[in-house]
Amino acid sequence: MLPIGVANKAEASNCSIRSVLSNVTGKWRMIIILALEDGPKRFGAIKRCIGDVTQRVLTENLRGLQRDGYLTRTVDPGPPVAVSYELTPLGHELLANLKPLVFWSAEQMNQVKTARMEYDKAHPD
Amino acid sequence: MLPIGVANKAEASNCSIRSVLSNVTGKWRMIIILALEDGPKRFGAIKRCIGDVTQRVLTENLRGLQRDGYLTRTVDPGPPVAVSYELTPLGHELLANLKPLVFWSAEQMNQVKTARMEYDKAHPD
Repeated sequence: MLPIGVANKAEASNCSIRSVLSNVTGKWRMIIILALEDGPKRFGAIKRCIGDVTQRVLTENLRGLQRDGYLTRTVDPGPPVAVSYELTPLGHELLANLKPLVFWSAEQMNQVKTARMEYDKAHPD
Repeated sequence: MLPIGVANKAEASNCSIRSVLSNVTGKWRMIIILALEDGPKRFGAIKRCIGDVTQRVLTENLRGLQRDGYLTRTVDPGPPVAVSYELTPLGHELLANLKPLVFWSAEQMNQVKTARMEYDKAHPD
């Protein structure tokens, strides 16, 4: 089995498989990586493409992804100034490893809905 | 590109790719699925195997995974009563789709650490 066990929070944040997993599977992080699939995009285009993300949250998550080496931030001094974001080779690798999970998740959505209805019927309280 | 854009929270929770993704990639959910890789386990064994999870959080997450059809809960009336959890075929499919991401994440941990150090050096404030 994979080494998933840790004794406490400090150990979990240190170097286990946990910390990398939470880095790549954060809700917004995954969505941003998917949004950049087709090539570089400006901040506004990413925001429109995702829809329900706030400016602050998007900024924070883009910075985190840049810090971890998954994307680059390029400033075109213009005018007008334009900031665009692009996946690095590491970011493309992450995307490639994320996609099977995403496609599979989308496919089995109905199975999960059915399972939920059955569970709720069997556990009415 | 994948249909990741939604207009608001209500739409996000309704039927987009978002809701299934957050279901399978919740931190504890992934770890529990990985913990059950080798076969059925009792509650206490899952808790020991994970290490830093509380009884309440583990109970809630096991219930959610059972509700979604990823695992079954079996009560052996004993005595003593023993409750065990096992992945369903759907749960095994999820595990199979999760593992490439997990292995890749673990492998590129050092690359991310290096990227972070470089970023922090370039952004000292």
